Order: sequence, then C-alpha cells, then structure tokens
Amino acid sequence: MRDVYHEQLDLILPELEDMTRTVAAAVRRSTAALLTVDLTQAEQVIAADADVDATREAIEEQIFELIARQAPVATELRMLIAAWRMVADLERMGDLSVHIAKVARLRYPAAAIPPELSSVIEQMGSVAGAMVTQVGDLLHSRDVQGALALDATDDEMDKLRSSQFRLMMDDSWPYGVETAVDIALLGRYYERIADHAVIIGDRVSYILTGDPSALAAEIR
Amino acid sequence: MRDVYHEQLDLILPELEDMTRTVAAAVRRSTAALLTVDLTQAEQVIAADADVDATREAIEEQIFELIARQAPVATELRMLIAAWRMVADLERMGDLSVHIAKVARLRYPAAAIPPELSSVIEQMGSVAGAMVTQVGDLLHSRDVQGALALDATDDEMDKLRSSQFRLMMDDSWPYGVETAVDIALLGRYYERIADHAVIIGDRVSYILTGDPSALAAEIR
Repeated sequence: MRDVYHEQLDLILPELEDMTRTVAAAVRRSTAALLTVDLTQAEQVIAADADVDATREAIEEQIFELIARQAPVATELRMLIAAWRMVADLERMGDLSVHIAKVARLRYPAAAIPPELSSVIEQMGSVAGAMVTQVGDLLHSRDVQGALALDATDDEMDKLRSSQFRLMMDDSWPYGVETAVDIALLGRYYERIADHAVIIGDRVSYILTGDPSALAAEIR
Repeated sequence: MRDVYHEQLDLILPELEDMTRTVAAAVRRSTAALLTVDLTQAEQVIAADADVDATREAIEEQIFELIARQAPVATELRMLIAAWRMVADLERMGDLSVHIAKVARLRYPAAAIPPELSSVIEQMGSVAGAMVTQVGDLLHSRDVQGALALDATDDEMDKLRSSQFRLMMDDSWPYGVETAVDIALLGRYYERIADHAVIIGDRVSYILTGDPSALAAEIR
C-alpha cells in the first residue's frame, strides 16, 4: 500500500471529517425523534439540514478553486474529484436523516414505530450512526482498515433489514398497512445511509491505495 | 439567456444523450416486467445495467482527461463538472430500474402488482420513462424550456405517488402487507428516478444560463 501525502487533501479531508460529525448527529437525532416521539428533535434535524447543505457548497467551492487555480496533476485531480463526491454523499446522508425525521413529524403525536419494531429501528439508527462515525474516523486515521470495518458494519445493516421484513411479513402483523409502509421506507433510508458510508469508505481506500477496484460498490 | 457554445461539451453531451436512451429503455422494460409478469424482461434489465455502468466509467474518463489535459478555465470546468454529475445521476437511474426489475423477479411467477394498482404503476413507469426521454431531448436541444417541462412532469409523479398511498391506506386494502411494502418501495424508486431527472434538468439549465440558483433541487 502506498502512503500518499497530499497537501490539498490535508485541507479538505478535515472538513469532510467535521461534516461526518454533523451528519452522525442528524442520524442519531432523527432516530431518537422516531423512538421517543419527539417533535422538537424531528424539527431540529429538518432545520439543521440547511447547515449541511451550506457546508457542502462551501467545500465544493474550495475543491473547485483548487482544481481551477492549481491545475493539479492527474493523481491529485483524481483525489480532489473523489473528495468532491464524498461531500455529495455526506450531504445526501443528511437528506436521508431529514426523511427519517419527517416520518416522525408526519405521525406525531402518534408514534410511527410500534413497540415490537422499536428494537430493530433503534439498531438500524445505531448502525447507520456508527457507520457515519466510522467514516469520520477513517478520514482522520487514513487507515485503509477502516474501510474494511465499514463493510463489516454494513453486513449488520443488511441483517437488520432482513429481520425487519420478517417481522412485517408475519401473518400476525397487527399494525396495518400504513405502519408497514412507514417501516419499509425507513428501512430503505437507513440502508441508503449505510450504502453511502460504504461508498465513501471505498473512495478513501482508493485515495490511500490508488487501486480503482476499491470503487466497485458505487455501481451496485 | 446567454447562448453558450463549448467544444468540450459538444463531445460529452451527445454521449449523455445516448445514455438517456439506454436508461429510458431500462425504466420502460422494468415497468413492463412488473406489469406483464415477465421474468425474461426483468433479467434483461438487470443484465443490461453493466453496460450503463461501463458507459458511465467511459464518459467519466473522457471528462477527466479533458480536465487533466486542457486545464479548462473556470466556466468550462464548472460545465465539465456538471456533466460529470449528470453521468452519475443517469447511472443511478439505471440502478433504480434494476431495483424495479428485481421486485418483478422476486415475486415471479406471482404478479408483484395487484390489478387495482396496475394503472398507477403503469403511469409511474410512463412518467419516469418520459422524464428520462425529456432529459435526452433537453441535452439535444439545449433549450432551457426543457428543464421547465421536467418540473411540470415531476408534479405528475408527485400526484401519482399520493394517489398510490391513498389506494394502499384505504381500509378495504385487500392485498396484505407484503404487497403494500413492494408498492411503497416501487413508488420510492420511481420518485427517485424523477428526482434525478429534475436534478439533471437543473444542471443543464445551469450550463445554459450560468445561473447557479438553477441547482436548488439537488439539495432538497
């Protein structure tokens, strides 16, 4: 594995790392809003997304200026473009947290999540939040092992989604169609947060190793 | 409105236009696979996605080479980066068609779509396919009116999704949870195809007018 040091990335990666902290908080808060039927937290996640959007724009502008002014050589350009995509992934993870918070808001003052499903939704939120945090750690450590850890955590998400489907498809499911649809869409949002985390992990692996085969997950 | 002519874009936009034809076919075929319970068509959509992925990679590589070799000035760089994102949007629309085809495959030989829902799914597929075609037309005509037409068609998708939810939430819904979950996720996939079409329309508007406010939909 090549150890690559790039001044330009040293400017950008810490900002992406900061963005992961904001997004991880949004994932955790939106899950808490669902589980504790907390409209205030739901509204906070929805309102705070404007900051994530602004951060994305600011980082993109920085990357753009670096490319435009410094006409980086091919390797550096590839890295800057990888960073450019990571900021879009992170912003999308913020949007998905907003979608989760909006389910909590839509059903308030009722609970969107029946008691039997609390555990699986709590775990999905916890796994998704952990993956965003793992992305931040990976950006900090720049250790390619961190990308492998993300793949392992993503397997947990897949298992949770399967068990969520099993619970809903049980003939004795008592909560009706509306709740099932909410739960299915929530599962999809959490799964997409996890997908974006894996894709970012792959991009960081690519930056660290220069191996383009690291990027296979993107096109799944 | 400025009339912008750029040689580099003249190389890239026709390839994006070709890609819209492939993706529009995938959207229509996956919908046909659902509605006619046709495993062969579903498998064809799933297999053909590798071509969409390869096209994405090839176009990205071309854009990358243009940026790396020609060190374009800021305006051209912005346009190339907009094109770079459009190819990722198109590739994602292909993935979403695969998700639709996989629902048809998962339920085969049973029909995933009950007769009462055929019409709304058919319309969603038709609107999504039309939006991909509109994107192709817009890339061809480079007429900013085409982006406005996309917004109007997207309103139809929103109405279809609402009516789909109404059908499922009716107390007399006879098809059980599994079908409701399939339909809800399919609705989400079609909606995301439409979202990506709107985002591409906005990017083309931005290229044509230079007005960054055209990009607002991306961060919704």
